Amino acid sequence: MLAINIYEKSLQKHRQWRGKITLAAKAPVETAEDLSIAYSPGVAEPCRAIAEDPGLAWEYTWKSNTIAIVSDGSAVLGLGNIGPQAALPVMEGKAVLFKEFGNVDAIPLCLNTQDVEEIVQIVKALEPTISGVNLEDISAPRCFEIEERLKKETDMFVFHDDQHGTAVVTLAGLINALKLVKKDKRAVIVVNGIGAAGVAIVNLLKKDGYENILPCGRKGLLLPGDPANSAQKEKIARRTNPGGKKLSLAEALSGADVFIGVSAANVLSPEMIKGMNDQPIVMALANPEPEIRVELAKEAGAAIIATGRSDYPNQINNVLGFPGIFRGALDVRAADINDEMKIAAAKAIANLIAEPRPDLIIPSAFEPQVARAVAAAVRKMARKTGVSREV
Amino acid sequence: MLAINIYEKSLQKHRQWRGKITLAAKAPVETAEDLSIAYSPGVAEPCRAIAEDPGLAWEYTWKSNTIAIVSDGSAVLGLGNIGPQAALPVMEGKAVLFKEFGNVDAIPLCLNTQDVEEIVQIVKALEPTISGVNLEDISAPRCFEIEERLKKETDMFVFHDDQHGTAVVTLAGLINALKLVKKDKRAVIVVNGIGAAGVAIVNLLKKDGYENILPCGRKGLLLPGDPANSAQKEKIARRTNPGGKKLSLAEALSGADVFIGVSAANVLSPEMIKGMNDQPIVMALANPEPEIRVELAKEAGAAIIATGRSDYPNQINNVLGFPGIFRGALDVRAADINDEMKIAAAKAIANLIAEPRPDLIIPSAFEPQVARAVAAAVRKMARKTGVSREV
Repeated sequence: MLAINIYEKSLQKHRQWRGKITLAAKAPVETAEDLSIAYSPGVAEPCRAIAEDPGLAWEYTWKSNTIAIVSDGSAVLGLGNIGPQAALPVMEGKAVLFKEFGNVDAIPLCLNTQDVEEIVQIVKALEPTISGVNLEDISAPRCFEIEERLKKETDMFVFHDDQHGTAVVTLAGLINALKLVKKDKRAVIVVNGIGAAGVAIVNLLKKDGYENILPCGRKGLLLPGDPANSAQKEKIARRTNPGGKKLSLAEALSGADVFIGVSAANVLSPEMIKGMNDQPIVMALANPEPEIRVELAKEAGAAIIATGRSDYPNQINNVLGFPGIFRGALDVRAADINDEMKIAAAKAIANLIAEPRPDLIIPSAFEPQVARAVAAAVRKMARKTGVSREV
Repeated sequence: MLAINIYEKSLQKHRQWRGKITLAAKAPVETAEDLSIAYSPGVAEPCRAIAEDPGLAWEYTWKSNTIAIVSDGSAVLGLGNIGPQAALPVMEGKAVLFKEFGNVDAIPLCLNTQDVEEIVQIVKALEPTISGVNLEDISAPRCFEIEERLKKETDMFVFHDDQHGTAVVTLAGLINALKLVKKDKRAVIVVNGIGAAGVAIVNLLKKDGYENILPCGRKGLLLPGDPANSAQKEKIARRTNPGGKKLSLAEALSGADVFIGVSAANVLSPEMIKGMNDQPIVMALANPEPEIRVELAKEAGAAIIATGRSDYPNQINNVLGFPGIFRGALDVRAADINDEMKIAAAKAIANLIAEPRPDLIIPSAFEPQVARAVAAAVRKMARKTGVSREV
């Protein structure tokens, strides 16, 4: 009933807004002199300066604060491949979050193609206008190739929030959850659902030194050599299961410390939780319906439960990550958003909770210090890892 | 001295602005409920509606008010081919004018390619995001092909302000100038400089019924069969000079009623004006230095003088045209901005001057009723010519 009201209200509001984001002038054009400064003939001067030194675009243009949110509409929320036109309301919403939480100017761009090569060429051509790219709702495995190519072939920083944003905020929650139950990086962590988000979570946890990760797909633990594996899955399978063990999800969870689900509604049963180690951590992040209902997980003995939902404690919400990450990257003219910066962002989010409790492992999306703290950590790590291009 | 100050001041202001245009949220995201309406999960509802009926994008998204300003930086102001990065300050300035004069959301997009096919493919791919395109500062003859292809291959309206905006405002000034000297569409009109603007002026005047147009290039009257002719010049030469007369600019002007220059500084001499008919009209629109200095033209007997400069009367300024033209086109979801709409816009601008005087043939760029009047005329003509897609 509540959900129906939200949908009706959203439709009504969208009709009223006719666009959730708009452009606003910063330069006045009220007099002839204004016009001659912001436009012709005065504008020729910054043009000439940039022609001589392209780096001055960061001093004289909106490039210093502008990114693009790029989608082809192939994997939108839980709606699937609804195409670029229907994806536009999501990208506009994302642009609002970038602006309101990070003061980042993010142009929503839905592209009328789902061809990897075309998407790469189009985004590359936008480089004079933007400093960075957030890929959004592009289906796996295409999203991996697009991201990799853009990172290699441009000087922009490239981020795919469905992957890395989710991984950062999940890691933030995990850090505090493990602290609470007094476990460490040797914890056995089952990651269920190896799509865009799952791949990124496994890779980021590995990078941060977590030793025992069991990535599971629909058929259980990923198996090297499975002909159904994408390149990414195969790579992960080899790293995590070199012996080629065959385990169902229930078997993988037997004796595990953490369940991280980025998969589908109701795939986690109370019995599986009961088979886990003492004080099991359950991060059931499928949207809008988690892998197990919170009440059921609690009854089955989960010590700490996180979901993607705003109506329960411990919401793993990407808005905790991307606005501050992009803010920090823009602030230092970053050439990349590398893993070290992502891990720094996760730690900054986790550190905002001075004393974690089972129902408080992660801050609320609306705490204004989150983006500031994340941006500061990202700036610092960008400088340390040499991707800052500050002048 | 003044000019130097303007350039210095412009550089300083650009450093302060760091971008003349920014994004602004229209939807609030201050509470969990706000977030669930503007973003997930509520946003799924407009997405689903648009997936079923793509036309609803005009009801639920910023597409209803958003266009792109597309440039490759190949012909920027008087600066030439300075490239897309250095062109960005101009496109941002244009975006400010679109917003402040027409309340049009115009995204400045400088593309890192000067290849016609690539530009066409990139702009086509943007169609889910935008309703129309303003091409800007793209050199001839590439601009003609890009415009033609986009008009044919997309459902967006496409306008090249350097061509059509200039033609519209020039026609507006011409209407009132001819009225003042009691001449009509049989007047002999020399158009000097057959680049993007010149081609558009000749074509629009022809379309509006002007009978005696003499288009001149660097070698004088355009000659059919000249191997140096572009496709557009050849077409115009055949229409206007079927007999293949050879005339210098001075010879073409001998006995002419109107000089329209979109060429270069100081190519019009006082002697040439003296050879024109009684009450010669001189529209010397080269920027920033006109084809003849205003004082010299006056001394030589010009009855009415217009330039592109804001420091003399009768400034032929594109800002009189494009904001209202795009406003009108967006208001009716136009599929095209056709010649009839351009002529209607020109007449609307001319009509704002109730009683033309030699020093007042065109309104000031800062009169707020200009864009309103132009938009109303454009809407009306769009409906009449069947390119409105209002629902």
